[in-house]
Amino acid sequence: MLVYLNGSYLHQDDAKVHVSDRGFLFGDGVYEVFRVVHGEIFREQAHLERLNESLDAMGLDVEKKIRKSLPGVFRELIERNNLIKNEATIYLQITRGAASPRTHPWPDPAVEPTIFVASEPFSPHLELQKSGIRVITMADLRWARCNIKSVNLLPNTMARQRALEAGVQSAILIRDGVVTESPNANIFGVQKNRLITYPATNYLLEGITRGVVLEIAMRLNVETDFTGIREEDLFDLDEIFFTGTTTDIQPVVEIDGKPVNSGKPGPVTAKIQQTYHEALYENR
Amino acid sequence: MLVYLNGSYLHQDDAKVHVSDRGFLFGDGVYEVFRVVHGEIFREQAHLERLNESLDAMGLDVEKKIRKSLPGVFRELIERNNLIKNEATIYLQITRGAASPRTHPWPDPAVEPTIFVASEPFSPHLELQKSGIRVITMADLRWARCNIKSVNLLPNTMARQRALEAGVQSAILIRDGVVTESPNANIFGVQKNRLITYPATNYLLEGITRGVVLEIAMRLNVETDFTGIREEDLFDLDEIFFTGTTTDIQPVVEIDGKPVNSGKPGPVTAKIQQTYHEALYENR
Repeated sequence: MLVYLNGSYLHQDDAKVHVSDRGFLFGDGVYEVFRVVHGEIFREQAHLERLNESLDAMGLDVEKKIRKSLPGVFRELIERNNLIKNEATIYLQITRGAASPRTHPWPDPAVEPTIFVASEPFSPHLELQKSGIRVITMADLRWARCNIKSVNLLPNTMARQRALEAGVQSAILIRDGVVTESPNANIFGVQKNRLITYPATNYLLEGITRGVVLEIAMRLNVETDFTGIREEDLFDLDEIFFTGTTTDIQPVVEIDGKPVNSGKPGPVTAKIQQTYHEALYENR
Repeated sequence: MLVYLNGSYLHQDDAKVHVSDRGFLFGDGVYEVFRVVHGEIFREQAHLERLNESLDAMGLDVEKKIRKSLPGVFRELIERNNLIKNEATIYLQITRGAASPRTHPWPDPAVEPTIFVASEPFSPHLELQKSGIRVITMADLRWARCNIKSVNLLPNTMARQRALEAGVQSAILIRDGVVTESPNANIFGVQKNRLITYPATNYLLEGITRGVVLEIAMRLNVETDFTGIREEDLFDLDEIFFTGTTTDIQPVVEIDGKPVNSGKPGPVTAKIQQTYHEALYENR
């Protein structure tokens, strides 16, 4: 596969960044993952807007010219990697660039940001979407600016790894007694005709798929409740599901070894899955 | 300057890591900064023990052989970079290695970790140690495992930058009403013959210099109090100072625009500075 790095298209194996890149030294960068269906980038604008918000929140000034060039880079990669006919993902990462000597404050004058884009074939997790997943609960150890989609992802990787080692697929993170996210997805509870999810605060990364699900809820006349799922109410839910760009919509059927309701994916999740599937694949 | 990267000594400009390095993608790595005086590495063993603790805490398995080779690498770099006669720092970073495709869980089977070591000349911040520094207070936004010395340093860099933009040198971070650290140093308050500092919990990176200061306090018959400085007690302190490997011991003379006590470095700080200076430079 070809990747894009700082203005050049090159073979993945040859794509290297300098050790003084602030992405490597500090995790001083942001990222986005885009879903591509038959060459079309799903909700591209929403991803790019979120990217801009993350860049602004961390004071990472990327020239308008560069920001505007990104969609062209995505398309060139999709084409040159021969990914038009099937499904794919695009990974974009922007860091504050390489600067020596290493110091916490930002380089002054600023240096060129590092821009890295990769694209790969993608197969949706159809089996998990159908069967549902098993998860465990754990404390949300992340920092207080989860709304920035930064590459400071150590807590997320550790949580995901801990879940795998416990023999389940993922985790439900809990902060101050309330369900926030999974290590890499948003979470919705279903109770009667109501979706319950965490509010868009500094403790939540607002997923693009989450946004689509909220639109779908409105269309289907399902109520939305942003007070968050309280830990002690987890087993009073009718259904619960994860959402994300590569997750799509995955029902959770077991939490901490106990079944959610009947232990099977529920009807509201199925209806939202179907409507989401239509949105993702319409006209493609 | 020469640096060391994965078994080779090479010119700094040529030192590059693959874009799939988990240090770059996730901040999935740890680091240490060592102080070198006339070719001698100060408290090397303590740093290496802390490194091992960080590696263990994040499940990063580095062969004993590699761990044992590090002191030799440090010395070779000091020598080849001609840093024996003066002062220097050594920067060590270990990441979970390069692995494709990008997924949160750890590579299975594990891949070779990335080992990067750099050394540079260093000039102590003598002026700041004498005059003291001005700081502002802000919320400690870091994650809940600050005891791991990871490269997930975005909150630290943002805090430091915010302080610089406010026209001061650094910041005092506050969690739940108690002073934890600065973005890159530990903090001690002085009240009468007593040092007050944050306890060694998951919310604190236990500095090596902090450890030396605690030893000095014992030798000087200064009491130690690990209940932490409460935010509302900041201006009741007689003195307050920062400690760190490159910070040494820096008195804080102004917080949020208000003087600490008389607004001048105090006698307990001066005595600890002097004793620390002797420890750092003895026999060198």
